Amino acid sequence: MKWPAHGSNPQYLYEAMEVTMPDNKVDFSANINPLGPPPLLKKNWHQLMEVISDYPDPKGERLKQKLAKREGISKDQILIGNGGAELISLLGRMLAGKKVLIVQPAFSEYEEACWINGCTIDYHQLEPDSWEWEDDGFLTKLQKADALFFCNPSNPTGVFYDQSLVFHLLQACKENDCLIIIDEAFYDFLIEYESIVPYIEKCSQLVIIRSMTKMFAIPGLRLGYIMAHPSIIEQMSALQPHWSINALALKAGEWCLESKTYIDETRKLIQSERERLFIFYKEWNFQVSPSQINFYLLKDPSLKDQLPLFQFLIERGIIPRHTMNFRGLEGGWLRFAIKGPEDNDQLMEAMTEWRKISRLSSL
Amino acid sequence: MKWPAHGSNPQYLYEAMEVTMPDNKVDFSANINPLGPPPLLKKNWHQLMEVISDYPDPKGERLKQKLAKREGISKDQILIGNGGAELISLLGRMLAGKKVLIVQPAFSEYEEACWINGCTIDYHQLEPDSWEWEDDGFLTKLQKADALFFCNPSNPTGVFYDQSLVFHLLQACKENDCLIIIDEAFYDFLIEYESIVPYIEKCSQLVIIRSMTKMFAIPGLRLGYIMAHPSIIEQMSALQPHWSINALALKAGEWCLESKTYIDETRKLIQSERERLFIFYKEWNFQVSPSQINFYLLKDPSLKDQLPLFQFLIERGIIPRHTMNFRGLEGGWLRFAIKGPEDNDQLMEAMTEWRKISRLSSL
Repeated sequence: MKWPAHGSNPQYLYEAMEVTMPDNKVDFSANINPLGPPPLLKKNWHQLMEVISDYPDPKGERLKQKLAKREGISKDQILIGNGGAELISLLGRMLAGKKVLIVQPAFSEYEEACWINGCTIDYHQLEPDSWEWEDDGFLTKLQKADALFFCNPSNPTGVFYDQSLVFHLLQACKENDCLIIIDEAFYDFLIEYESIVPYIEKCSQLVIIRSMTKMFAIPGLRLGYIMAHPSIIEQMSALQPHWSINALALKAGEWCLESKTYIDETRKLIQSERERLFIFYKEWNFQVSPSQINFYLLKDPSLKDQLPLFQFLIERGIIPRHTMNFRGLEGGWLRFAIKGPEDNDQLMEAMTEWRKISRLSSL
Repeated sequence: MKWPAHGSNPQYLYEAMEVTMPDNKVDFSANINPLGPPPLLKKNWHQLMEVISDYPDPKGERLKQKLAKREGISKDQILIGNGGAELISLLGRMLAGKKVLIVQPAFSEYEEACWINGCTIDYHQLEPDSWEWEDDGFLTKLQKADALFFCNPSNPTGVFYDQSLVFHLLQACKENDCLIIIDEAFYDFLIEYESIVPYIEKCSQLVIIRSMTKMFAIPGLRLGYIMAHPSIIEQMSALQPHWSINALALKAGEWCLESKTYIDETRKLIQSERERLFIFYKEWNFQVSPSQINFYLLKDPSLKDQLPLFQFLIERGIIPRHTMNFRGLEGGWLRFAIKGPEDNDQLMEAMTEWRKISRLSSL
């Protein structure tokens, strides 16, 4: 069977698995803020109707200005994109034919975008199960690379690597004149985070990818941005189709940036739900990745391949993200978003049932 | 000064021309249906809020199905895009390094997309002022080309070329194994149109671009599609970023396809306004292109360069589209969208004033 490349759109998963999709289902396969879009966006929704009949500002000037102000950089260090996926695709084009090194497991789009542009791809693997950074062999690989992709916090593990590692990588990339692309799509779910944006001034090799669709629950709108040296922004901008970011995303993005209380509430909710889930998993003997954000990897250690658990869950309308296309995982784990209390309760109920059945059958 | 590359977003035009933008202005520089979005979309707007918190269907399956049904083709002959501009950009990538021939004057994005992908670009010029097809030298140029771009009805002239010419071009392209890309972004404003979609079955070189943002007044949402042989669709699809078309555009697109009465009303309005405007222009000695759709070229024949008229209009908040970046026009004309009666009245008032002033100053 052909596994869907990403989470969300569960109809494709059910189709591929030849399982009838239940009417009641909870989708844990997309890592979206369970609180939904910010109240300001909901409140002003009717206003967005006005912006659809005009072309979007091709430069996204107003949003760019607000982002620049918030991040303490200049507008020419920012490129807004039609979602993180477009920005990764543009990076792939910029790197066409070059050698890239991807820290694995990672979001599959890096590899896709590099592959379609004829890059030579090498991988540096995080320590399996602990997901700790392992320096062995890294520098040798980096010396041959033109660009390094590093997702922090990591998708799919949710593990966050602190500034000492980031600084180590930055220095190594600088010394080897290698682009370092840090994908911070989920950084805003962290309770503690120290910005790496100031490094842009000192390290022209640094490219930071951000997404606005996860925290602000607007993946349907598509919105992300890149921060880097103006010369990189210019190169990428030249490759971007005209009017690539729709007018609604641009306007909604401005409102999202004003929604600070909502971010705090989200972080607190995610943290308390994560703690609740992790205590449950420990009790019921499930292994999880030490995530600090809004999703985590999970496995039943009694299974080598997690497919039976996956099948059990999707039949009940509980939809995890398969890990078949995460290099280094290949189905050995399942990924779950942290959703609201009720949804997480449903998940825990299903997991309890699974555990009881598997205990029974092992008797 | 650097002229903006496109119409709409008049702030950039006023900035470039160093003219203060008046509070009251009418933008004739974007060719959008003056009736605004279809009533069904307006009525259902609140429902669109629901789709923003999920990833868009990466395949756009439902809309694609409806388009396929309407056009009488199969889904694998369609690619939906984040506006026509993205589709042109993908075509440019597919043609990277090849030789392209562009029928001029034409939408500047063809040249942009080909240029950024290292294509060799040649031009075939339509007869100046009459905009009639001139076959002289065409075949010699076509023999060297890998792809031909042809905008029909033409942007910027609004002239429509009938099936006999299209058939002639199709045959020539087939014989020379040259891709023929026909941009029908404005076809749905024509009162009489015979579909060229059935040719796709017989001519694997044919690529038809369509836009849904002009007729349905949703340029802010971004939506277009391409129809071609499945092998071309597959190549382009592989180059398209994941989730490129936002969820709102996909859903709105479905509603647009249901809005048939609205299309008829639009065509009638545009036709009667065009007739009214053209009678006025004849009377006041302005020259226009024989447009059959919702925009036209205009010049004051007493001026060689239309800049004084352009300046006069924008100072009064009447915003035409400059033609500086239309090869073969280079400022010799201005382009105007056909808007609703009130807006067109304002335009005619300003033109009358211009004519009176210029007659006075020539005394």
